[in-house]
Amino acid sequence: MSGGCPYFEKKHLLFKSKPHLKEDEADDSQKGINKASKGGIIYGDYLQLDKVVKAQVLQSELKGNKIHDEHLFIVTHQAYELWFKQILWELDSVREIFISGHVRDERNMLKVNTRIHRIVMIFRLLVDQFSVLETMTALDFYDFREYLSPASGFQSLQFRLLENKIGVPDNLRVPYNRRHYRDNFKEHESEMLLSSEKEPCLLKLVEKWLERTPGLEGDGFNFWKKLEANIFEGVTKNLHEHLLSKGERRISYKALQGALMIYFYREEPRFQVPFQLLSNLMDIDTLMTKWRYNHVCMVHRMIGSKAGTGGSSGYHYLRSTVSDRYKVFVDLFNLATFLIPRHWVPKLDPSEHTFLFTAEYCDSSYCSSEDSD
Amino acid sequence: MSGGCPYFEKKHLLFKSKPHLKEDEADDSQKGINKASKGGIIYGDYLQLDKVVKAQVLQSELKGNKIHDEHLFIVTHQAYELWFKQILWELDSVREIFISGHVRDERNMLKVNTRIHRIVMIFRLLVDQFSVLETMTALDFYDFREYLSPASGFQSLQFRLLENKIGVPDNLRVPYNRRHYRDNFKEHESEMLLSSEKEPCLLKLVEKWLERTPGLEGDGFNFWKKLEANIFEGVTKNLHEHLLSKGERRISYKALQGALMIYFYREEPRFQVPFQLLSNLMDIDTLMTKWRYNHVCMVHRMIGSKAGTGGSSGYHYLRSTVSDRYKVFVDLFNLATFLIPRHWVPKLDPSEHTFLFTAEYCDSSYCSSEDSD
Amino acid sequence: MSGGCPYFEKKHLLFKSKPHLKEDEADDSQKGINKASKGGIIYGDYLQLDKVVKAQVLQSELKGNKIHDEHLFIVTHQAYELWFKQILWELDSVREIFISGHVRDERNMLKVNTRIHRIVMIFRLLVDQFSVLETMTALDFYDFREYLSPASGFQSLQFRLLENKIGVPDNLRVPYNRRHYRDNFKEHESEMLLSSEKEPCLLKLVEKWLERTPGLEGDGFNFWKKLEANIFEGVTKNLHEHLLSKGERRISYKALQGALMIYFYREEPRFQVPFQLLSNLMDIDTLMTKWRYNHVCMVHRMIGSKAGTGGSSGYHYLRSTVSDRYKVFVDLFNLATFLIPRHWVPKLDPSEHTFLFTAEYCDSSYCSSEDSD
Amino acid sequence: MSGGCPYFEKKHLLFKSKPHLKEDEADDSQKGINKASKGGIIYGDYLQLDKVVKAQVLQSELKGNKIHDEHLFIVTHQAYELWFKQILWELDSVREIFISGHVRDERNMLKVNTRIHRIVMIFRLLVDQFSVLETMTALDFYDFREYLSPASGFQSLQFRLLENKIGVPDNLRVPYNRRHYRDNFKEHESEMLLSSEKEPCLLKLVEKWLERTPGLEGDGFNFWKKLEANIFEGVTKNLHEHLLSKGERRISYKALQGALMIYFYREEPRFQVPFQLLSNLMDIDTLMTKWRYNHVCMVHRMIGSKAGTGGSSGYHYLRSTVSDRYKVFVDLFNLATFLIPRHWVPKLDPSEHTFLFTAEYCDSSYCSSEDSD
Repeated sequence: MSGGCPYFEKKHLLFKSKPHLKEDEADDSQKGINKASKGGIIYGDYLQLDKVVKAQVLQSELKGNKIHDEHLFIVTHQAYELWFKQILWELDSVREIFISGHVRDERNMLKVNTRIHRIVMIFRLLVDQFSVLETMTALDFYDFREYLSPASGFQSLQFRLLENKIGVPDNLRVPYNRRHYRDNFKEHESEMLLSSEKEPCLLKLVEKWLERTPGLEGDGFNFWKKLEANIFEGVTKNLHEHLLSKGERRISYKALQGALMIYFYREEPRFQVPFQLLSNLMDIDTLMTKWRYNHVCMVHRMIGSKAGTGGSSGYHYLRSTVSDRYKVFVDLFNLATFLIPRHWVPKLDPSEHTFLFTAEYCDSSYCSSEDSD
Repeated sequence: MSGGCPYFEKKHLLFKSKPHLKEDEADDSQKGINKASKGGIIYGDYLQLDKVVKAQVLQSELKGNKIHDEHLFIVTHQAYELWFKQILWELDSVREIFISGHVRDERNMLKVNTRIHRIVMIFRLLVDQFSVLETMTALDFYDFREYLSPASGFQSLQFRLLENKIGVPDNLRVPYNRRHYRDNFKEHESEMLLSSEKEPCLLKLVEKWLERTPGLEGDGFNFWKKLEANIFEGVTKNLHEHLLSKGERRISYKALQGALMIYFYREEPRFQVPFQLLSNLMDIDTLMTKWRYNHVCMVHRMIGSKAGTGGSSGYHYLRSTVSDRYKVFVDLFNLATFLIPRHWVPKLDPSEHTFLFTAEYCDSSYCSSEDSD
Repeated sequence: MSGGCPYFEKKHLLFKSKPHLKEDEADDSQKGINKASKGGIIYGDYLQLDKVVKAQVLQSELKGNKIHDEHLFIVTHQAYELWFKQILWELDSVREIFISGHVRDERNMLKVNTRIHRIVMIFRLLVDQFSVLETMTALDFYDFREYLSPASGFQSLQFRLLENKIGVPDNLRVPYNRRHYRDNFKEHESEMLLSSEKEPCLLKLVEKWLERTPGLEGDGFNFWKKLEANIFEGVTKNLHEHLLSKGERRISYKALQGALMIYFYREEPRFQVPFQLLSNLMDIDTLMTKWRYNHVCMVHRMIGSKAGTGGSSGYHYLRSTVSDRYKVFVDLFNLATFLIPRHWVPKLDPSEHTFLFTAEYCDSSYCSSEDSD
Repeated sequence: MSGGCPYFEKKHLLFKSKPHLKEDEADDSQKGINKASKGGIIYGDYLQLDKVVKAQVLQSELKGNKIHDEHLFIVTHQAYELWFKQILWELDSVREIFISGHVRDERNMLKVNTRIHRIVMIFRLLVDQFSVLETMTALDFYDFREYLSPASGFQSLQFRLLENKIGVPDNLRVPYNRRHYRDNFKEHESEMLLSSEKEPCLLKLVEKWLERTPGLEGDGFNFWKKLEANIFEGVTKNLHEHLLSKGERRISYKALQGALMIYFYREEPRFQVPFQLLSNLMDIDTLMTKWRYNHVCMVHRMIGSKAGTGGSSGYHYLRSTVSDRYKVFVDLFNLATFLIPRHWVPKLDPSEHTFLFTAEYCDSSYCSSEDSD
């Protein structure tokens, strides 16, 4: 839109009537009249630019020592928060589709996948965005950092909501200075965080969906039994439960089976989009962890690595979060460990295995969410 | 800062006293107390997030038909406007350094160059940022675009300010539907634009600075005469003036000489940073034009290329702005046409040509701005 | 792999036997023995690095005037050619799937889509790759460009093959200096090019596939008739044929119908991956055109824009190829012009319209390729 | 060049004679004659494409089971190696400038800085390049990885040379399976590596250069003494030597002083380019570590994280190299810890402190390399 995106040139060469558009509205947009003086919404009002581009108040200026680079610092963080907002928007909509059972209708899989992919693209941008802030040197930062106290990125509400809603569990968080992460927030924010911990996170919703993967049913194709019959022994349910309890596994034994089934039969039409979804979920994990690492690199450059008196170093704290503990979908990565040659995979005959048809929508076990918990 | 940047770990292992920091302030930041409940500024207030992340109002929702993807559309444009604000911030500061004559002190060249380079890095990000909006398909856009009327990117004040302040001249603008670009704006905005046209733009300031390049003086090294003596004939002052009058040249004959001098002697310490500056200015042109082109590509995907009734097509208008007419520093690109073999370049002997010393700061012709206009 | 990718740690914790691996082979890889001295293939031989990283011969050096930056020039172009090779590899495999009728089995759609997406990712890299070559200035290039004559990028066989195999038609090519593009090549290369023009290009294969979109059949759902019954008039077959003959349309009237059907019903499971494929094809067009534009920008910087004596300027020639004439899938972009409100789209009832089932594989009209030409 | 870069349009509108070009050569390039059939070098020969794009031999194909994705695996690694070659080319040239004492002539600082910056841009590309290989899934990799044995990225000669020449010291390398890294190589390669360890690495050369920073001299400005007089105590030479001996510091006490001096007086014309150089060196460290981390992420996705029998896991080994141990210029990052308010920095008066003049080239202590070792 910026720089001249012409919205309203709807021209249905194709069609005789345009019943949804009043004719004169369409014409006005091309007539050379000053639209700004007429009714209707204009660009700046639509985007609420009076709020967005006037929200840059330099603390250094307030304190009588205006430092040029503080503006960059503010704008960069605001841009991050804008994009966090968008990620939360997508995340909530995807979670809602899962929660409300709409994923029973497989037509919604494209929507789920598209929105998850959009989160991936945003994170890709956010990882690159550090290159802009890195044009500020440690010396420039030093000139105003004292004015910011006690503000800290630990207080970013949206980032913590985002972690919770994807599925970073409280008990795996690295503690910072013996303080619970929620203690950095005001009361109502702290409540929002607590509530986000209690809602079903993306990880759990995906887990339930994987458990319903068609083909797992004991009285049907029974994928797992067939696989064991061929070659399997190793990972018993007991071992898996043990690893789960230690936090080294995050999804149930059954969900693991579903994911493996999707991996092996990913070319079946019904599993093509689910397979893409699993890839996108790994992308999110990878990009979040790259984001964390890029953040660490920038902090290293800005403040060095030395520890503070009376507390652990922020650098070292941040570095410790670049860890598999913070990888939510770590089980999907570890599926790579379980790969086997193609000829060991139980054969699937579409003409025989009717669950591969996708059009039965709500009837199959894949779709019903009632019996899933 | 987001995600946990620890500002206040200033630890001067190096130093015995920290007179500028009250001891208890420093300690509190590490003590596990809820900072949010105490005085001082916190993250969300500092960044005015109540404004920034609450400024997303969907027109489709207001009109009773909430369309999910409108949120992305809003956030993307707000992110663009945030970064435009930052570019204007840097641009104004650089122009101020030139206008106030601070560039006389060559110590300011690093600052000028750093800030221009930051604009380059921001544009690089903005060019990539289209990949996020491109996750929205034409179909998704179609669902809400009618609600936006008559808002249009042509109404982006900051983008027009930015063009004016860099140096896109009014008379080279491609007209859109026979309307002056300023007619898209409210009165006070239109005045801001008019005023930005009258202030010295970056191009003109750089031109003046290039004209003062040491070594051009007729009673000194007299670069141009030496060059002509060797090999030169071609581009007479007259021809140049002619091209200037047609808008195919943008900087004066003398500024051209200065730029060529910097090119040829770029390894002289005094010209190293000026040479980088010229490169960065070309980067800005290149990236703005890539931004325009990426914008065109996105519009093509969103609304197709067909013309509207009663007006030129937005697609074709935008496409016409991806043009050398909009390249402000086009003369710098064309210097490549004038390159000659190294052995034709007049020799410079540092021990003889004292203007190469950079430490005389305010005395040299390079620095004085009084006589420049 | 570079920098230490550990291939051979296949560890099937899961499985009791590893029949496909000789035990001692696996162990050796971890025993601290110098693998290089044993049998088996090692990294450098596998990658034929003796060829690849020893193929940098500087013409400037051969001619007694070694210019440092020529090495960058060579390596950059070799990297481009390596990636062109990879794009051709993917392109040929996708075309083969279409040609051999394997796309009848919809299980191959994931493969097609994945490989087309890979081409997208490669082009994304290639667009960015210019930033490396741009670290060379016009002056540095000037120092060795005379040694390269008459070598020219116009002689890149792989780039022309790539254009032909995607579907840039001979008659829409911009002529350069009144010479046919094939005249830049040696005889056997010229034959390869001619042959690539005669083989079915990606565009034509996609067209045939779109024409078979299930739901178009006159004796079935009959999408087009239903659409016309609702609202349609405009684009008659005659008009379309006219535009086709002028090169402003590239796909048949029937293929256009198929594409529109996929657009409107993209959420139907059977159309989800086809819809993604259409998006990816537009990505290729967009990225190729961005590649061309970035190339133009770099050439502008390196050699300026002035015309040569006795011929058109390379800069202006290249600029003229940044055109919709070179957009192969331009019809897909223009579908945006035909969008209509959702409630005008004929309803689809999965329980009634059995063609939406994807599992019938080879029986449906979508799959059979026999009757497609 | 690829896709049509027109080298030879040198047109000196400016100049009457073109003595360095035979007239007919220039004309032929525009005359529409098939250049390929004449003498002179052509594109494909110049780039030795017969070697480069014919060096893709699939092991899976040799072993009778051609796997499509192996081609991507090969091309990606070859592209990495091509760029490593280019990095080594730049690195060697920069080291040569330092070693030969050419850096005494400050005119060479632009060259040094430009080439180091080019390495930065290449690493930036290499970090992004993983996105292409990531289009291959673990399952696709599994299909051919057994054919690669015992090839391994640990055997990349160029990557190890690159680490050594930048300055990763042998004793800080993380051991892999109790084996010295040089044991992965053939004898003559092992010798090249040993020799690269013995040559002065970039770190050591920069250290020597920093030690000569003008202003440090005891009988001159004596920066360090002035700084101590103001505020200093802390980091004694003894402590620094202790940290050096443990590998937590990498540059000498005196070089540290030089770096700090450049930091504090970066706006002085003579220090502007040196300051940029220090920033670029930190960029290299940051990007190498991001490259390592992106590599780890890809390996996690391809082979999971589980340990192999009889040895440590490749994943965990690679992860352990994403460490400050591998940051060569870590001392520059840690300078951020030593920052102090501007008013504590000893004042510099250019008219008084003549070492700030840059034109004395070879006479100043900054330039002389004779006494530096």
